[in-house]
Amino acid sequence: MTRRIALALIHYPVRDRAGAVVTTAVTNLDVHDIARSAHTYGVGDLFIVHPIAAQRELVQRITTHWIDGSGARRIPDRKPAMEVVRIVSSLDEAVAGIGGGVELWTTSASSDGTLSFGAARERLQSDGPPVLLCFGTGWGLAPEVMNRAAAQLAPIASPRSDGYNHLSVRAAAAIILDRLLGV
Amino acid sequence: MTRRIALALIHYPVRDRAGAVVTTAVTNLDVHDIARSAHTYGVGDLFIVHPIAAQRELVQRITTHWIDGSGARRIPDRKPAMEVVRIVSSLDEAVAGIGGGVELWTTSASSDGTLSFGAARERLQSDGPPVLLCFGTGWGLAPEVMNRAAAQLAPIASPRSDGYNHLSVRAAAAIILDRLLGV
Repeated sequence: MTRRIALALIHYPVRDRAGAVVTTAVTNLDVHDIARSAHTYGVGDLFIVHPIAAQRELVQRITTHWIDGSGARRIPDRKPAMEVVRIVSSLDEAVAGIGGGVELWTTSASSDGTLSFGAARERLQSDGPPVLLCFGTGWGLAPEVMNRAAAQLAPIASPRSDGYNHLSVRAAAAIILDRLLGV
Repeated sequence: MTRRIALALIHYPVRDRAGAVVTTAVTNLDVHDIARSAHTYGVGDLFIVHPIAAQRELVQRITTHWIDGSGARRIPDRKPAMEVVRIVSSLDEAVAGIGGGVELWTTSASSDGTLSFGAARERLQSDGPPVLLCFGTGWGLAPEVMNRAAAQLAPIASPRSDGYNHLSVRAAAAIILDRLLGV
């Protein structure tokens, strides 16, 4: 890949079932699974975005356990994956953490996204600014994040006739990384 | 897809870090994530294979909560996903549950697998017996399962030069379903 790509897992602002903008709690396995998927596909940065200090500290404790603690001794393979995790309080802080000048891409299970996976893969092979690919927890990214995006990635289409596509964010992130960066 | 495909998430016999054959504990989010991915990709059966009755009862409590309990009222979208879960005590019971005459396919992160994803996708489009695609928890399926397989699926290759590919079974299952059945 030519362009740098980073991921952001956003806990605020995201939508709840009713569409209201809320803050979600950290899910331990989100951090593990998405870090492991990111590192497997050669992505060097996974920003965990949370506005609440106690939740950021929880993520810090998790990553420290696997990078420097007893987890690192028990399962050494987890350490390089956990090292891609960067803990920030806002999306702006993630953008600044890459050095600014970032192209924001969003993901969604809805049909609003228009950037096909084929076109996205090509754009990553071309020259350009770093891409920050954003995933929403809860019921997806809030409109204020979607509206900032330079591109909205197409949804993962279901082959079912009823179009059911309720993937976990962990599964969706894995599939999207495979489609964009898989060999 | 022409052929029926079912999934099996196996907790015994699987390997531990040292390669010994062990039984692993059920992970709640394995059931949720793989059921959601299966249903999204049109797979009608996810066998959760566990030899210990108390662990099978745990899975039963989880699925009942989301199919008939308060979970079903809170998040109705989870219900059709959880309805694909079938709880069995052994791989043989899963095979019998499909009606026998099954083609067993295994998955592994190691390079032993030779069936490419392209060839596997074609085989699913051809006539043939149902396929039972097996995923191992822990450090992967035990040799006695691998040796029963009609086909061993190729590993999900890492684009990294060091070949790091330590995906969670939840992420691997999502990627494999997308590669075999995605549109």
